[in-house]
Amino acid sequence: MSNPAPMPAPMIELWRGGLLESRHLGHAVIWGPGGIEAAWGTPDTVIFPRSSSKMIQALPLIETGAADAFRLNEADLAFACASHQGEARHVKRAGDWLAAVGLDEPDLRCGAHEPYDRDERNRLIKADASPCQLHNNCSGKHCGFLTVTRHLKAGPEYTEIDHPLQRAIRTTHEEMTGEAVAGWGIDGCSAPNFAVTVAGLARAMQAFAAAGDHGDRRQRAMHRLTRAMATHPELVAGEGRACTELMRAMGGRVALKTGAEAVFVAILPDQELGIALKIVDGGNRAAEAAVVALLVWSGALDPNHPAALKRLGGPQSNLRGLVTGVTRTSPGFPGPGISG
Amino acid sequence: MSNPAPMPAPMIELWRGGLLESRHLGHAVIWGPGGIEAAWGTPDTVIFPRSSSKMIQALPLIETGAADAFRLNEADLAFACASHQGEARHVKRAGDWLAAVGLDEPDLRCGAHEPYDRDERNRLIKADASPCQLHNNCSGKHCGFLTVTRHLKAGPEYTEIDHPLQRAIRTTHEEMTGEAVAGWGIDGCSAPNFAVTVAGLARAMQAFAAAGDHGDRRQRAMHRLTRAMATHPELVAGEGRACTELMRAMGGRVALKTGAEAVFVAILPDQELGIALKIVDGGNRAAEAAVVALLVWSGALDPNHPAALKRLGGPQSNLRGLVTGVTRTSPGFPGPGISG
Repeated sequence: MSNPAPMPAPMIELWRGGLLESRHLGHAVIWGPGGIEAAWGTPDTVIFPRSSSKMIQALPLIETGAADAFRLNEADLAFACASHQGEARHVKRAGDWLAAVGLDEPDLRCGAHEPYDRDERNRLIKADASPCQLHNNCSGKHCGFLTVTRHLKAGPEYTEIDHPLQRAIRTTHEEMTGEAVAGWGIDGCSAPNFAVTVAGLARAMQAFAAAGDHGDRRQRAMHRLTRAMATHPELVAGEGRACTELMRAMGGRVALKTGAEAVFVAILPDQELGIALKIVDGGNRAAEAAVVALLVWSGALDPNHPAALKRLGGPQSNLRGLVTGVTRTSPGFPGPGISG
Repeated sequence: MSNPAPMPAPMIELWRGGLLESRHLGHAVIWGPGGIEAAWGTPDTVIFPRSSSKMIQALPLIETGAADAFRLNEADLAFACASHQGEARHVKRAGDWLAAVGLDEPDLRCGAHEPYDRDERNRLIKADASPCQLHNNCSGKHCGFLTVTRHLKAGPEYTEIDHPLQRAIRTTHEEMTGEAVAGWGIDGCSAPNFAVTVAGLARAMQAFAAAGDHGDRRQRAMHRLTRAMATHPELVAGEGRACTELMRAMGGRVALKTGAEAVFVAILPDQELGIALKIVDGGNRAAEAAVVALLVWSGALDPNHPAALKRLGGPQSNLRGLVTGVTRTSPGFPGPGISG
């Protein structure tokens, strides 16, 4: 289980009018070819990775042969790792994917919610239409799950913990992190979410970063997923989202994935680095700011890129465009602190 | 300024699948007739009260004579203290108020944002209409500000720090908290927000709680605002909101007010108590859970009321109605902790 007294590190501060207004603590690990290269907080803190482990959850899609049997392309693989905005293109992709594997929306088990994308949200409202499960930000992951299920000819309740798919995913987590999973919970989309340590998650991300397009089946699967995410940032999230904007800012060299409750991971193939972080209070804005800080620290991201500044260091403005404050890093965490 | 090293107390925990997922720390003070009755964290931590000080900001509305000159009723006074949902009734009230004082929407300085209320939001979308400043959750406060400005025949830029209204509000904060303000920032609605300590804010709330409908001008003004808020919970926030649901749960005996970045205050006239709390990371869900805990601890709220349970102690469910976890209090903070 978790360290009996995990001690998170101060990471992100919100300043208003020259005073500290709010602050966030967290745990972060950067894992390199030789092991942990840097860490803040308590690396062996157990967390729920939530959506940040989607690429781990997607390994069976490739490794069972399902992806190739159904001729999934790179964009599909990116979408299998997505927490998407529910833009029209996302909804269409999900619908087309299900049709291609002989399934339909009711076969999904993710539930429905209003799309995050405003245009699609407004279209539904004007049409007096309710969102369907295709709009669910996890529908890409669930399309991947259903594809595996079809390929294995397994039962339809693919979110049950004892379903062969989930058992394979659990084993994959353990292989990737080098740990027994500490437990599991039910995610917002009803899929199981396996608890891992921040260090274990970083180690897994490093394996993705180090994986070439050669090697064993796992290596090649990891490589395909990393390339897919980094090449299709608009599918992994959507317009205006951190993953999409920051991956674009880094020119396709890095794969990023957010997880609910302020988790963020990064796969940096050029440096063979994996990054994992958790803001202990679940504040997503701080996870975004913290991953910007660590990507800058790793040399992968320009701190003055607009996509970075809007999340860390740049002025925060209100509805009338008045500057109200700034987001900074805490002392001890790399980045634009109070003295910078 | 703030205590050089404020030490927040663990307050609220989110559990999933039997594991701790996220946690929130904060500062809280309960001020009674004899002074501080209970405290968690560091009472003299400086915070921005944000909207939680709206009733302090509304004192000049009464004390200048503006409220009576323009024949404002109790509902108007509640609305002057509101962070409202932008429901149709809120929008209409704001528009009618401005007309009654010979002003119009362009005279507001709060800016516009999409209403939080879904029905009104959808109505605008269907009509291809943009929200106006009346929809801003702070428009009631700003109607009150404009009323004072008209009464004093002062300039139209009532959000400027040196406007007579804001100077009066600053003085009022200092009188109510017993402190010099630590500084000020620009709020989301462009009004100045004066920084105070958590203890000072609690002391101010206690003064509201102890104020009868007799006594000096300030006593009578505080009493009117407290009665107004507690009597019109639907105007102070709106359907589904914590302030509204919890005030209704307490049968009109308590006035509550939330502030952005996880501030919450409570005015309890029956016990002459004032409560103020700040969750240091700005997580509003934790401020709601913490104020539930303290209202229960004070004997004012039934912990098993649905409005309480949905925020603290009751099961949290996902889109498909599966129970995913629970929100608890941390050891040392009163309420349903892990052992309860």
